[in-house]
Amino acid sequence: MLFARVVGNVVSTQKEEKLVGRKLLLVQPAEPKGAAKAATPLVAVDAVGAGEGELVLIVQGSSARQTARTEGTPVDCAIIAIVDSVELGGKSVFSKKQDPGE
Amino acid sequence: MLFARVVGNVVSTQKEEKLVGRKLLLVQPAEPKGAAKAATPLVAVDAVGAGEGELVLIVQGSSARQTARTEGTPVDCAIIAIVDSVELGGKSVFSKKQDPGE
Amino acid sequence: MLFARVVGNVVSTQKEEKLVGRKLLLVQPAEPKGAAKAATPLVAVDAVGAGEGELVLIVQGSSARQTARTEGTPVDCAIIAIVDSVELGGKSVFSKKQDPGE
Amino acid sequence: MLFARVVGNVVSTQKEEKLVGRKLLLVQPAEPKGAAKAATPLVAVDAVGAGEGELVLIVQGSSARQTARTEGTPVDCAIIAIVDSVELGGKSVFSKKQDPGE
Amino acid sequence: MLFARVVGNVVSTQKEEKLVGRKLLLVQPAEPKGAAKAATPLVAVDAVGAGEGELVLIVQGSSARQTARTEGTPVDCAIIAIVDSVELGGKSVFSKKQDPGE
Repeated sequence: MLFARVVGNVVSTQKEEKLVGRKLLLVQPAEPKGAAKAATPLVAVDAVGAGEGELVLIVQGSSARQTARTEGTPVDCAIIAIVDSVELGGKSVFSKKQDPGE
Repeated sequence: MLFARVVGNVVSTQKEEKLVGRKLLLVQPAEPKGAAKAATPLVAVDAVGAGEGELVLIVQGSSARQTARTEGTPVDCAIIAIVDSVELGGKSVFSKKQDPGE
Repeated sequence: MLFARVVGNVVSTQKEEKLVGRKLLLVQPAEPKGAAKAATPLVAVDAVGAGEGELVLIVQGSSARQTARTEGTPVDCAIIAIVDSVELGGKSVFSKKQDPGE
Repeated sequence: MLFARVVGNVVSTQKEEKLVGRKLLLVQPAEPKGAAKAATPLVAVDAVGAGEGELVLIVQGSSARQTARTEGTPVDCAIIAIVDSVELGGKSVFSKKQDPGE
Repeated sequence: MLFARVVGNVVSTQKEEKLVGRKLLLVQPAEPKGAAKAATPLVAVDAVGAGEGELVLIVQGSSARQTARTEGTPVDCAIIAIVDSVELGGKSVFSKKQDPGE
């Protein structure tokens, strides 16, 4: 799984029917500390009720279809966790409570 | 899922039999704002009736086979949504109505 | 799917038993116009009777196992179409009839 | 499979329900000799009881779901072995006993 | 499939139980001519009895689980063929008989 920031959303009325009702969020790949990486944002289906600005974990490939919201759908990226805190090398490097957001 | 522009098509008469009748479109990876990325175009099967110049979402890998048009076929890239609008950081960065096309 | 040129072949007598009888072709990733890309060639199983020098489409990952020739085999790359023509931005950029080959 | 060092962990209370009870570890891609690679850490589910600082093997994609701890879960990266020793070109290049850790 | 050289091995006593008895080989991605590529070695399960120094073909992702030795295991890279010879552009560029090894 990779870290990403929820940075926006995508609206599509003409989409594959299995995607109807799925929230398409724009996620920016990020570092464990929460900083954005220099990469093009991806589009992910939200499986956990993530909000804009939050640091989340995304899962890619067939594993993105292993959630109640994505099973059997043509989805290759899903948000599967909202990050509370990250510890790296014995130190806390991210805490949701002290996170200023994206 | 990734953003891409429909930029052309591929004709093939000698293809794997499960692909007969599938429209093979040329798609150029793009940024959320709709601008083309510097990358080689991919070939995708269209699952939503996308037209040339439109900004779409593509899905890759096994998930590309989870549409009515691609189930059980040797396809690793499919168009699964036509993008109406994209919001990034609270601002609208793409709107199909104001899109000049590729 | 990606464009590739058939540029050679690989002979292996000691291989996984499910691969016995499968033709292993060397394919060079290519641009939609047919020019070779600067990349290491891949080895693909041929599912459509492609010949050396031809521009083809390759499929990767689990989707490479969705052909009659590759079902259930340890194969992650297959040739699933021979390209007749490519249209990009409204113009013909590749035609098999006028193709000088690799 | 790839080499990685366990360098930390991630806490998430709001996560996909199938992930409840799974330990989310931060792993840094590494060289066979155990040195860290210049890459963003990944988040992996631990299937073998790995401890911080240990050199491990990670598996990615759908294969990450083939362990007792990850079956059917939205997980695309799992730790499946703790490395005791690595031999490269006939020489021992890593030994857990002499490893100073990350 | 990709070319790789068998360059070593990995020993692990604490591993996912489905991996018990599987030989973990260190493989270096290579060019069709057999020369090593500048890339980090991967760890692959051997499905064909490959020996150190040999040029082999590796398969990645879920397809790595389609061999008798890897079925149902958390493995994303397997050796599925030992290369006898490679022909590129009509010329022999690799022959096992004349191969000096890695």
